[in-house]
Amino acid sequence: MKEVVSIVKIGGNVIEDDHALDQFLNSFSKLKGPKVLIHGGGKLATKLSTRLGIPSNMVDGRRITDKETVDVITMVYAGLANKKIVAQLQSKGTNALGMSGADGNSIQAHKRPVKEIDYGFVGDIDEINSKMIANLLGTGITPVFCAISHDGKGQLLNTNADTIAAEISIAMASYYEVILYYCFEKKGVLMHIEDENSVIEHINRTTYKELLDKGIIADGMLPKLHNCFHALEHNVAKVCLGDVGMLQKNAELFTTITL
Amino acid sequence: MKEVVSIVKIGGNVIEDDHALDQFLNSFSKLKGPKVLIHGGGKLATKLSTRLGIPSNMVDGRRITDKETVDVITMVYAGLANKKIVAQLQSKGTNALGMSGADGNSIQAHKRPVKEIDYGFVGDIDEINSKMIANLLGTGITPVFCAISHDGKGQLLNTNADTIAAEISIAMASYYEVILYYCFEKKGVLMHIEDENSVIEHINRTTYKELLDKGIIADGMLPKLHNCFHALEHNVAKVCLGDVGMLQKNAELFTTITL
Repeated sequence: MKEVVSIVKIGGNVIEDDHALDQFLNSFSKLKGPKVLIHGGGKLATKLSTRLGIPSNMVDGRRITDKETVDVITMVYAGLANKKIVAQLQSKGTNALGMSGADGNSIQAHKRPVKEIDYGFVGDIDEINSKMIANLLGTGITPVFCAISHDGKGQLLNTNADTIAAEISIAMASYYEVILYYCFEKKGVLMHIEDENSVIEHINRTTYKELLDKGIIADGMLPKLHNCFHALEHNVAKVCLGDVGMLQKNAELFTTITL
Repeated sequence: MKEVVSIVKIGGNVIEDDHALDQFLNSFSKLKGPKVLIHGGGKLATKLSTRLGIPSNMVDGRRITDKETVDVITMVYAGLANKKIVAQLQSKGTNALGMSGADGNSIQAHKRPVKEIDYGFVGDIDEINSKMIANLLGTGITPVFCAISHDGKGQLLNTNADTIAAEISIAMASYYEVILYYCFEKKGVLMHIEDENSVIEHINRTTYKELLDKGIIADGMLPKLHNCFHALEHNVAKVCLGDVGMLQKNAELFTTITL
């Protein structure tokens, strides 16, 4: 039986809030066995853009990434957010190593082709350097990825953190039994969006279709759950969605997804 | 006989200028064998500080690093400068991995005690994680360090890049024969500051004392040469100072320092 690796993605709202981040990093540090962290930082990037007088253009929740914006996200994601997390994890006894997708050639991508919308320097993932990540995990290092990939030709690319988490999980499935955690501000996937406690505790392929048909999974949850099933269909063992408490199993409620 | 490792520090002026950086990274990429790059980014940090309305306070060429400034240097050194260099090295066939001193706990330091001047979040190095760096080099990775260390308690610290280069060189001397290169805009240590071609080609302990006595080594060269001899006295084989051409031995002139 393969060893379990925990791949955890945290949302931007957690990074924003010093107290929530500290609480999250405490829980993450206590996770036993090899683990990987993936983070975004969109709201911090918007803040810095505003201070620098660079407009933030969002289409369907995705950032249009022009030349100035790719510099801003590189400063915020790979610099400020990533190094803050790494330094704090070190203080909690986790030997973290922060990376963008350019580092160790860990995430190769290509610039998204322009169709109706020109997203600019946004990358769609081609390949995860799974051997390099497995090597790091093997030496007791905890990789901490920010939401940036590269094209192998010198260009950094803004890349969705949920997708990076799913693709790294899939790549690690050759070496490990992978549990993928999407950690965010809600307690899980909700049956009634206005009722925070209406968490759907288990979802599988059959109930997923029913939830889609009934329109219960909508908006931001659609791409997230798409990522979950994409991961499960590519040998990831289990996906969990919920708030910080989920990691130490002291949350009463969270959502578990299997095929 | 030990394998040779090249430890190269590039100055801020090279990072500033896209053409000079590209030329430097081409030469660096062609260096055979294991290698490490260390960079600063002070001028880029000053630029960003100015745009954000944060005053840059310098004392004897050292940056006073308050809470806002440590965020700025984290964004610029660990984010913008480091990831730009890493992505470009990847495009040139060098498997670079960018790091601050917090990453992999590679550079532990303590906040400089306040005496006459409070430098703020500036770190003096306590320990280099030489085993981790040697492990990375052993797997064909080229570590790229920015000028940031950490205190192990969650705080990032601004740390002089020349000193980081010297300390990493000393740490690597247990594993490798180390050649340390300080690459900057001048052709080497100059006999006459106004004559760019008056490069002193060889310096040793005896001639160093003579140059100091005559006042030929002064200002910014004083701490740089102090770092060189500190490294040589701790088992670093050779230190070279010069411009980009030095790395591929196609510079006619550069300075070599041995004990």
